[in-house]
Amino acid sequence: MTEDTNQSAPSASPSVDVPPTRVLSIASHVVSGYVGNSVATFVMQLLGLEVCSLNTVQFSNHTGYGKWTGTRIPPSEISELYEGLKANELADFDMLTTGYVPGAEGLEAVGMIAKDLKKTGSVGGGKNMFFWVLDPVMGDSGKLYVSEMVVPVYKSLLPLADLITPNQYEVEWLTDIKLLSPADALTALTHLHATFKTPHIIISSIQSLINQNEYICIGSSMTTDGKPRAFSITVPMLKGPFVGTGDMFASLMVSRFRHAAASAGLLERQSWMSPDEVKAADLPLARAAEKVLASMDKVLKKTGDARDKKVKALDENDEGADAPIKRARYMRAAELRLVQCVEEIQRPVVKYTAKEFHGVA
Amino acid sequence: MTEDTNQSAPSASPSVDVPPTRVLSIASHVVSGYVGNSVATFVMQLLGLEVCSLNTVQFSNHTGYGKWTGTRIPPSEISELYEGLKANELADFDMLTTGYVPGAEGLEAVGMIAKDLKKTGSVGGGKNMFFWVLDPVMGDSGKLYVSEMVVPVYKSLLPLADLITPNQYEVEWLTDIKLLSPADALTALTHLHATFKTPHIIISSIQSLINQNEYICIGSSMTTDGKPRAFSITVPMLKGPFVGTGDMFASLMVSRFRHAAASAGLLERQSWMSPDEVKAADLPLARAAEKVLASMDKVLKKTGDARDKKVKALDENDEGADAPIKRARYMRAAELRLVQCVEEIQRPVVKYTAKEFHGVA
Repeated sequence: MTEDTNQSAPSASPSVDVPPTRVLSIASHVVSGYVGNSVATFVMQLLGLEVCSLNTVQFSNHTGYGKWTGTRIPPSEISELYEGLKANELADFDMLTTGYVPGAEGLEAVGMIAKDLKKTGSVGGGKNMFFWVLDPVMGDSGKLYVSEMVVPVYKSLLPLADLITPNQYEVEWLTDIKLLSPADALTALTHLHATFKTPHIIISSIQSLINQNEYICIGSSMTTDGKPRAFSITVPMLKGPFVGTGDMFASLMVSRFRHAAASAGLLERQSWMSPDEVKAADLPLARAAEKVLASMDKVLKKTGDARDKKVKALDENDEGADAPIKRARYMRAAELRLVQCVEEIQRPVVKYTAKEFHGVA
Repeated sequence: MTEDTNQSAPSASPSVDVPPTRVLSIASHVVSGYVGNSVATFVMQLLGLEVCSLNTVQFSNHTGYGKWTGTRIPPSEISELYEGLKANELADFDMLTTGYVPGAEGLEAVGMIAKDLKKTGSVGGGKNMFFWVLDPVMGDSGKLYVSEMVVPVYKSLLPLADLITPNQYEVEWLTDIKLLSPADALTALTHLHATFKTPHIIISSIQSLINQNEYICIGSSMTTDGKPRAFSITVPMLKGPFVGTGDMFASLMVSRFRHAAASAGLLERQSWMSPDEVKAADLPLARAAEKVLASMDKVLKKTGDARDKKVKALDENDEGADAPIKRARYMRAAELRLVQCVEEIQRPVVKYTAKEFHGVA
């Protein structure tokens, strides 16, 4: 980051001296509700990042409603917007974060941007300190959102990413390993580090195999010889489904990992790699994940409570409505309560802590 | 607003019980920097509003840079996005705020949305309490940004607006009155209330005729017989130029006027009209404007200081750069410091207060 702004550390973390951070966020935009950049922009701005949002689609609402209007921007326009930034010397990004991109061609355009930024992005102390957080948005709960053509493109991009934030289902697509046991999760992390050299991985949620009421977040920062250093955080399961949680998770991770890496003095190291002697549960990635999950837990609790109240009212008064309208009402009831959670996003109180993960529950 | 969310009053104003507020914000979007919705969304979200951002353009950066990429969405798509919201019962807006709209046809599409919302928007206590804040973005400092064809369209829409936020130059276009003296400003306000029945007007900045180092913000809420109740707030002039200040002013006004009207118990009254006995300097619009200007002053000071430092560095090291790159660098240096000003936006300390304005300095 070359700009000499006098940005102070966000009030949320007064003890950490985080340098000004310029992030390019490539994801979808909806007019109403909270998915993609409509979640990520606010979350990252609230945590003090200078966010440049490049919207890959503009839809009236997310597609879970069943009906929506709006358009995707053509892949060529993703590239053109980036070229416009470059032409004005505005592409000196410290970080790139990418979410849902419609189609393989669009994803290839995003890949080209990432490659270019690896070469020309933020320069600190003579080295390019650019960092890419890639959320390989492909599907969830056994269902692909994207065409299968997208999967090999993601695989080709993983070696460029610094941190990936797949969910359980996406890990299975990327590794061809079914996550049926804790040991499988460790095998998948090992495979991802070894095959793609991705330095940091965090799997946002794996259904606990022991306790139906819990889920596990598993992360790992690899050592210099490409081995995993895995930790897990167990969190109570809240009654879903929610929409946009993957986007909230990823955008909180972008912000919190930047803070944690700054605290650990790692921003000048390639990919913010922790020295080999740092134990899994002491990783900056673990510190970040704890804060992220603390915020998530509070936001989802508030969202769930408000949704349940709303759904109860709907159940009592919805007799006359036809099925598509009912669906829209239930979808709306479940939208994230984001602007109501400024405090929860800014000042999470960590409750669930990371412990070293050895592939056993 | 029909949704039963348990939104609390934003932490910024714990003493005011503002009901959940759903706002449709129609304006431009830039990937990098702060104009249009790229300012307004964050400001309004930070102040607790549920913001639905409909982006009329997506450009890489604002046009002041001289070069940019990206596209305007066709007017038909503005309408389609709105139809998508309606089809999902998502168009129950309490407020509409509109900024830059490219071209007369696009503005007509926006006008149709406003007309529809006047009929079908938020319903409180059996009445439609929908409120439109119209920023008639046409130009500034003697220069039109839009085609002249847009001017009559704005004039045709003013009778539908509840609050308009023109700058000095836009007032001149809307009234055909040159603002050469304080008396002219009062004449223009009188004309706007009488001709268009616009209940609330606030002219964001008029160059003081007495003191070069000051500008005046003049507002008025009309009485039941359409007469102005005008107040003025005198504020020190900060060395500009800045970009996006009109958008920041309007979005702060949306939030603060909603708060002030709630405090005064006016949200159930048509257009939040104050009873006739309320004096100009006691209007909720005046209370709102004081807070808006307090935030603006702080944000612009921080912006100006950071810019001056940056510009000094540029002046010393910019020898080799060609003119377009120099221009881009200076433009970037002057971008609003928005994410650095969360505190200033949330908790303004009022310094400049409203006094009754009689058309004399």
